Amino acid sequence: MKLDSKQQQAIDNLRSKASETRRVSVSAVEEILYKPYPLLDHGFIRVVDYMGDDSAIVQAARVSYGKGTRQVSEDRGLIRYLMRHHHTTPFEMCEIKYHIKLPIFVARQWIRHRTANVNEYSARYSILDKEFYIPDPEHLAAQSFDNRQGRGTVLSGSEAQKVLNILTTDASNVYDHYEEMLNEGQDGKIIDQSNSGLARELARMNLTLNYYTQWYWKTDLHNLFNFLSLRADSHAQYEIRVYADAMFDTVKRWVPTAAEAFSDYRIGGMNLSAAGLEIVRKMLKGIEVDQSSSGLSAREWSELMEGLDQDKSD
Amino acid sequence: MKLDSKQQQAIDNLRSKASETRRVSVSAVEEILYKPYPLLDHGFIRVVDYMGDDSAIVQAARVSYGKGTRQVSEDRGLIRYLMRHHHTTPFEMCEIKYHIKLPIFVARQWIRHRTANVNEYSARYSILDKEFYIPDPEHLAAQSFDNRQGRGTVLSGSEAQKVLNILTTDASNVYDHYEEMLNEGQDGKIIDQSNSGLARELARMNLTLNYYTQWYWKTDLHNLFNFLSLRADSHAQYEIRVYADAMFDTVKRWVPTAAEAFSDYRIGGMNLSAAGLEIVRKMLKGIEVDQSSSGLSAREWSELMEGLDQDKSD
Amino acid sequence: MKLDSKQQQAIDNLRSKASETRRVSVSAVEEILYKPYPLLDHGFIRVVDYMGDDSAIVQAARVSYGKGTRQVSEDRGLIRYLMRHHHTTPFEMCEIKYHIKLPIFVARQWIRHRTANVNEYSARYSILDKEFYIPDPEHLAAQSFDNRQGRGTVLSGSEAQKVLNILTTDASNVYDHYEEMLNEGQDGKIIDQSNSGLARELARMNLTLNYYTQWYWKTDLHNLFNFLSLRADSHAQYEIRVYADAMFDTVKRWVPTAAEAFSDYRIGGMNLSAAGLEIVRKMLKGIEVDQSSSGLSAREWSELMEGLDQDKSD
Amino acid sequence: MKLDSKQQQAIDNLRSKASETRRVSVSAVEEILYKPYPLLDHGFIRVVDYMGDDSAIVQAARVSYGKGTRQVSEDRGLIRYLMRHHHTTPFEMCEIKYHIKLPIFVARQWIRHRTANVNEYSARYSILDKEFYIPDPEHLAAQSFDNRQGRGTVLSGSEAQKVLNILTTDASNVYDHYEEMLNEGQDGKIIDQSNSGLARELARMNLTLNYYTQWYWKTDLHNLFNFLSLRADSHAQYEIRVYADAMFDTVKRWVPTAAEAFSDYRIGGMNLSAAGLEIVRKMLKGIEVDQSSSGLSAREWSELMEGLDQDKSD
Repeated sequence: MKLDSKQQQAIDNLRSKASETRRVSVSAVEEILYKPYPLLDHGFIRVVDYMGDDSAIVQAARVSYGKGTRQVSEDRGLIRYLMRHHHTTPFEMCEIKYHIKLPIFVARQWIRHRTANVNEYSARYSILDKEFYIPDPEHLAAQSFDNRQGRGTVLSGSEAQKVLNILTTDASNVYDHYEEMLNEGQDGKIIDQSNSGLARELARMNLTLNYYTQWYWKTDLHNLFNFLSLRADSHAQYEIRVYADAMFDTVKRWVPTAAEAFSDYRIGGMNLSAAGLEIVRKMLKGIEVDQSSSGLSAREWSELMEGLDQDKSD
Repeated sequence: MKLDSKQQQAIDNLRSKASETRRVSVSAVEEILYKPYPLLDHGFIRVVDYMGDDSAIVQAARVSYGKGTRQVSEDRGLIRYLMRHHHTTPFEMCEIKYHIKLPIFVARQWIRHRTANVNEYSARYSILDKEFYIPDPEHLAAQSFDNRQGRGTVLSGSEAQKVLNILTTDASNVYDHYEEMLNEGQDGKIIDQSNSGLARELARMNLTLNYYTQWYWKTDLHNLFNFLSLRADSHAQYEIRVYADAMFDTVKRWVPTAAEAFSDYRIGGMNLSAAGLEIVRKMLKGIEVDQSSSGLSAREWSELMEGLDQDKSD
Repeated sequence: MKLDSKQQQAIDNLRSKASETRRVSVSAVEEILYKPYPLLDHGFIRVVDYMGDDSAIVQAARVSYGKGTRQVSEDRGLIRYLMRHHHTTPFEMCEIKYHIKLPIFVARQWIRHRTANVNEYSARYSILDKEFYIPDPEHLAAQSFDNRQGRGTVLSGSEAQKVLNILTTDASNVYDHYEEMLNEGQDGKIIDQSNSGLARELARMNLTLNYYTQWYWKTDLHNLFNFLSLRADSHAQYEIRVYADAMFDTVKRWVPTAAEAFSDYRIGGMNLSAAGLEIVRKMLKGIEVDQSSSGLSAREWSELMEGLDQDKSD
Repeated sequence: MKLDSKQQQAIDNLRSKASETRRVSVSAVEEILYKPYPLLDHGFIRVVDYMGDDSAIVQAARVSYGKGTRQVSEDRGLIRYLMRHHHTTPFEMCEIKYHIKLPIFVARQWIRHRTANVNEYSARYSILDKEFYIPDPEHLAAQSFDNRQGRGTVLSGSEAQKVLNILTTDASNVYDHYEEMLNEGQDGKIIDQSNSGLARELARMNLTLNYYTQWYWKTDLHNLFNFLSLRADSHAQYEIRVYADAMFDTVKRWVPTAAEAFSDYRIGGMNLSAAGLEIVRKMLKGIEVDQSSSGLSAREWSELMEGLDQDKSD
């Protein structure tokens, strides 16, 4: 992503102003406020506002005046307890707002998270820029065989080159036609005085799904954690995962204790079903178990054994 | 939209079965259950399930056992009262589920209504069909001058023809390349044995926004009315309005009294601000009013006079 | 709960009518439709409408026409996969509506689940009946010592008797005063012609929190499962748990496969954190672990060992 | 409401600290931050955090970098346009958090607004204070005759006195019994060593609905405006209206332009139905109209004429 000089100046301008506030402030977020994190080839996220910090979670859990005299170690213990036991409402007391630029096909996955507030750039009103996503060659992978929605091996150089050519040529081509239908160039000049130009709300349908859009996206910390647990996960599509990863970095700056608890309890762990728990208990007691007598399907059994790092092809 | 014979058979099969139920049923909806309403060139909506009827609204408003002995006229009066005074929760007691096929750029507007339940066809798992929306020539219009997001005059024949050529050629072209990147034809056959094919989640980004997707969409009547008031409105884009209009037809079958109240109080009416109301009161008393002394901006004044059918360019 | 003859007749009347529908019907729910499940001393739940069944979950997951030729065993596998992997949207395609009578202090917990539709009996419009909850002596327990929000040992007979006397006398007393302030008896007759009576919206404030209220409550299956996982849990207050348990019975009738998957994967299981999983893996490999080197707090360690059925007081 | 010295000190402590922030700040809110607005006899609201200001609404509507060079007058025009045309999403970009102390019967109305984040004081964990709401005599009114849910004339002195006696005596009485059942005084001392005390989650049911509870309540500006339009309205119960009025004062400090637009377009105005609009148009043209030919019911007709300030009993 390249910011033009006007954009960079607007950001510098916002960052140069400071005011006094009685609200809780978080200096590690203030450091990056308004600054874009570049992502993919033209995308970014940037934090544009935030409300609350770790102490707001504790305060809501205690519903008490001020923070009293409790020590940090106790606050940490409380936040970890809340996360571990899925007491989610105190995390809703923190709010964050991002400005995000992302390809439309990523936006389509993202918007399925319904609990956020969104204001998106409208291609009914305005003309989209000629900016589209082209993956790096190392991210061009074949369909996965064992995971119906994922990626497998990286494409060979020649196949990758063919794909890149197609993506680039088609995206460029549809944009030229977008301008031609609008009868208006990127400079705002009318192309052919004898034509009236197609309405923007119609012309946009000729663009491909890798074109970039942008929006303001605001959510509370609980729902942001839900987003991250799905989208920073290894099963998420790479192109949304890079956004989730960058957001998680901003969350670590903003609410370090809650972010740590989230990492420890919601990332990299495992849900045991009642049957799965029974099997683990037996194994710990040295009782022999196998799939056929476990009550689990072959698929569940292999998921469980893999999770437990056990070599039981059984 | 053309149903293939397998789809038609599945619908006929569902429609041929009937079971007994103690739930309220609405025969006018049963008549159309599962049947697609064709929309645009390849789209449709069809009602696939519903819960409640006009009496469920009344029941919730009364929170009482059964319907008692009250007469239809009283129920109608109550429903109209609820609608007029924005008592919305009783309308939430009715629920409807649609199966909808629609262009992606329409889906992108639609999904902004966050209160519904949605399950969409996934182009990460599956390959999209070669079906894209091409407008009829009479719907190809220029950008409106007085409405920043609408359409103005219809394009001339030659400009329209050029637009149709572009849209058709580009959509067809990007699909051919979609298949080529997937290395898989619509018949499921591998195109080139020496290639491994690009993952579906990536290849889809080459498709244009007029490609069709489909989803199940379920909502309650209150939120459906909100959707209709925005999307069946003359300011909505034509391509989503046709869906809203068709859905409103199904709503008239389902809850005729609520639909009538919605038409009467939420469609074609006008919101008067406090200042606007004061002006109307003065005018009714024969007091002269003009924009400069009204406290309204020029824009508000002209909106008001237009709404009141008054010729006061002032 | 005693239904008066008019209420019983209304229910019988509703149950005696049947109509034909093309919607999916579930005979095990039809059997109990409108019938109250008595709960506590005056409460109940009853199913008054439903939409969808197990097949609606499968249909949404497949987003395909009809059910095709797939067998029940495959559908069951798919539903279990969805539950295990927290793919929640297909469960949102089923909807159920209950009529519920419950003490106000239970209603106050219940309403915190924000995703449902609710229409409650209004004590601003109407006069509440003289019905209040008095626990059975075996449910009168002391504050728990090791669980800050739970109950411990059952009260002794004499202390229990004192509590029952207080609860009954006070509830009866405040109701007599409620009527006196309203200046209106339960028969609707004015008590003292020289008084005007206090507005209902004010008089109600004199009632205690064990008075019964009632509402229609409608939700989708995904959110109902969330409700059940919190409220049918052993940590939930007994007085709301009996409602959750009864509702779970109706869910087993309605969507038996989804209910089974919910039982297997969401009830009686255990969430392992990344650190907890690492400890389990070590234990399975015969590596010695203890709290001090585990990275877990004493509290987390004991929660983990208890869950694994291990006697490691460490 | 009386703050004890510890609470006052905690507030003074929070107010004495200031930090630098790059976020937008609103000095008129900073002035009142953390300070309680006393309401009713023991209640209050206080703003404890906020995000955004009028410019955040404009920014979201423009989805552009920075604020550019546009002038205040244009921003005001844009905000008024958004409000007038119900473009609600930009208002969601502002967020505010309150700490609120309120009677339980008010909390029960309040919580029906489902879109906010809430953390309430839990009477399962903690013991409620002996604080209950007793209305001022001038707010003790009879049931309204023409408004089924409102209040009519104020009670006479003697009837009011009787009501006050009842409310005070009963609330005091149930609290004494609450302590007796808990077997614990307000000082935390055990009352009777031979008793074990009833669990808090049960004992609380003996309290009346005028007891005070408290919560943190966080919402966005759009949903706050919805709350205010219902609860600052003359049809709202007085006891919730005082809270809405106080919150509206804080909103005027926070987002003065949006608050003004809300006042002008959402308060004191009138919705005309299509039929009502037709009647107004006729009246403005001097055409005679009456109820019988208007298509309106008698009730709608009188609502319309009253709104238009017309004396047409017809």
